Amino acid sequence: MEKLWSKLSSRVNEELNASTDITVTVRGTLSMLMQNINPEDQRPVLSLSHGDPGAFSCFRTSHTAEQAVVDALRSAKFNCYAPFVGILPARRAVADYMSRDLPYKLSPDDVYITSGCSQAMEVIVTVVASPGANILLPRPGYPNYEALCTFSHLAIRHYDLLPDNNWEVDLEAVKELADENTVAVLVVNPGSPCGNVFSYEHLKEIAETAKDLGILVVADEVYGHLTFGSNPFVPMGVFASIVPVITLGSISKRWAVTGWRLGWVVTCDPTGTLQQSKIAEYLKAYLNIVSDPVTFIQGALPDILEKTEADFFSKSISLLRETSEILCDGIQEIPCLACPTKPEGAVFIMVELDVSLLKGINDDMDFCIKLAKEESVIVLPGNKMHLSL
Amino acid sequence: MEKLWSKLSSRVNEELNASTDITVTVRGTLSMLMQNINPEDQRPVLSLSHGDPGAFSCFRTSHTAEQAVVDALRSAKFNCYAPFVGILPARRAVADYMSRDLPYKLSPDDVYITSGCSQAMEVIVTVVASPGANILLPRPGYPNYEALCTFSHLAIRHYDLLPDNNWEVDLEAVKELADENTVAVLVVNPGSPCGNVFSYEHLKEIAETAKDLGILVVADEVYGHLTFGSNPFVPMGVFASIVPVITLGSISKRWAVTGWRLGWVVTCDPTGTLQQSKIAEYLKAYLNIVSDPVTFIQGALPDILEKTEADFFSKSISLLRETSEILCDGIQEIPCLACPTKPEGAVFIMVELDVSLLKGINDDMDFCIKLAKEESVIVLPGNKMHLSL
Repeated sequence: MEKLWSKLSSRVNEELNASTDITVTVRGTLSMLMQNINPEDQRPVLSLSHGDPGAFSCFRTSHTAEQAVVDALRSAKFNCYAPFVGILPARRAVADYMSRDLPYKLSPDDVYITSGCSQAMEVIVTVVASPGANILLPRPGYPNYEALCTFSHLAIRHYDLLPDNNWEVDLEAVKELADENTVAVLVVNPGSPCGNVFSYEHLKEIAETAKDLGILVVADEVYGHLTFGSNPFVPMGVFASIVPVITLGSISKRWAVTGWRLGWVVTCDPTGTLQQSKIAEYLKAYLNIVSDPVTFIQGALPDILEKTEADFFSKSISLLRETSEILCDGIQEIPCLACPTKPEGAVFIMVELDVSLLKGINDDMDFCIKLAKEESVIVLPGNKMHLSL
Repeated sequence: MEKLWSKLSSRVNEELNASTDITVTVRGTLSMLMQNINPEDQRPVLSLSHGDPGAFSCFRTSHTAEQAVVDALRSAKFNCYAPFVGILPARRAVADYMSRDLPYKLSPDDVYITSGCSQAMEVIVTVVASPGANILLPRPGYPNYEALCTFSHLAIRHYDLLPDNNWEVDLEAVKELADENTVAVLVVNPGSPCGNVFSYEHLKEIAETAKDLGILVVADEVYGHLTFGSNPFVPMGVFASIVPVITLGSISKRWAVTGWRLGWVVTCDPTGTLQQSKIAEYLKAYLNIVSDPVTFIQGALPDILEKTEADFFSKSISLLRETSEILCDGIQEIPCLACPTKPEGAVFIMVELDVSLLKGINDDMDFCIKLAKEESVIVLPGNKMHLSL
């Protein structure tokens, strides 16, 4: 028995060893840092590492959204399974919500409801992965993309975001990195973790570059509309007549309900290229076999997207602007820290660390571990997130 | 552009063609049958194809469960992300709930909360899949397993359930099918679609067979406790001291809330074999990167599992017994139909079709299509579910 059983064990071990990157996630890093908190420190832990407004009472979601969910649940109409692409009213609501900012009208058929943006990411990585293919990912970025790609055997090529140029995409690097096996470029806007918001012009340049390279643009807009600087939020779908765009989004951040797990994949495809490419068909085949988002939250989605008061949004934005200013001002007073570009969106700020000014600190990860241990303050490392821990 | 773009298209096409099985699911078949409904038929569609009590008002979930979810949502404590293994109170509640029927006590660490049993299935298939490996699946069975295995490149070997022997597992077949690349055997109890409930003795024989073969038992108990015949429900975990068992479960069926997407993977592992085999580690690595179940429904889980009134359960069971008897009696009156074994659990009945008594019907799929078209009655085919459509 033990001999035979060890067979499965060693198989699993091989897969695990081949996929060390899958353990490098924000959650994994956070968990490791939390283990370094000194339990004897009486001060409360100051967590500056949560991309999760839902965890803070000041960002409590709108009463309208909460009530919509209660009503949908109480109706008992949404206790059953949903169609695997999502229920029609939810798909229509997302199409309408996104169409407000687009020069064309999306159809409910363009929308696939997912369990948060995480499942939207998972779906899209799975669908574009094929033997030998590669995808262009931003650096700095959100390491779960790296983990998902590793899991799906989709090769990763990193292009840089330029800190001295408002964290814009290094388009020359994108052109050099892409080859005949490149299937897509990921664009995260508003950007995380840099807090950048791309201008209309820059987004258009990205679309034109992707068009020249013949690759799909995957637009992660999970922080869509969460902007508080000079650049307004422009959805990548605006440029979908230049190049096909697949947009990923969610109510998680804007409504501060990360735990509700309601997101979407949207094919922005006014020219019909995506439909012709069978991507939509494969997307459906995959959604058919994976778990769906909760039906009654789907049932609440039309009210959430259409009826949430403008007040709720403006209050969140003011709060983000205010807290980002407090953070930037504080950082300016600390000699070893600098902020190359003030954040204009999303919920993170990217800080430059001058290790040479610190004694006994080797690098950013070392800094984060010791900050947790000595000060009970949690921040995430910027460089090592993309390397092995 | 078009030339380059077609590259991704043809890649996706290849994957799609290589995975025709992934389109053979209950949902896919249902959707095809629904398209055959005659829109001019004024009678309401009679759907006998839904393994979804949540879709029927007579199975409306308990007030306690509904209230627990409303309370968790209103508390605003559960709007944030959950730990990827699930929140501790939910894990503890599942451990306690399952331990009631086991000869040992499960720990919260044995429990991983998932988005329904679908994600539990997805997780387990992904974790045991490795190049060259195979898994033993029951026939008849739930075709989403076949779809998931195909997607994960996990080879499938079917063992039969024996219609003349209360749909028990053909253990001789299991022994013959297993080889050095077999990693697990799937056991679904209460059974779907056959409605069988395995006896204590038979479950023990299965465990001993798996032990001899050195393979893991994956126990799908999504219909756990939904029994209305002579055999009570015995969880496979009872035999986990013989062979390691991974149990998949959910509140979906017993509470008639398939749309709430709350399930679990539980390692029944009193001997610690699973922990040693690193399966738990790989399971966590995978859960770390996929989407979680909704946090506030996790928050409600302790109340749902502990406080639901016995009345609610007994009413559901009576209703299932009553409707299964109506169905069996009706089937006896139809010459071309027979029911080899009366169902004793779950929500389906497996019916034998004598095609030779019918004119112009080729096989079960043909029967289902014509029944939809001519009578607006939807039933699922038994054989063709496992073949291509």
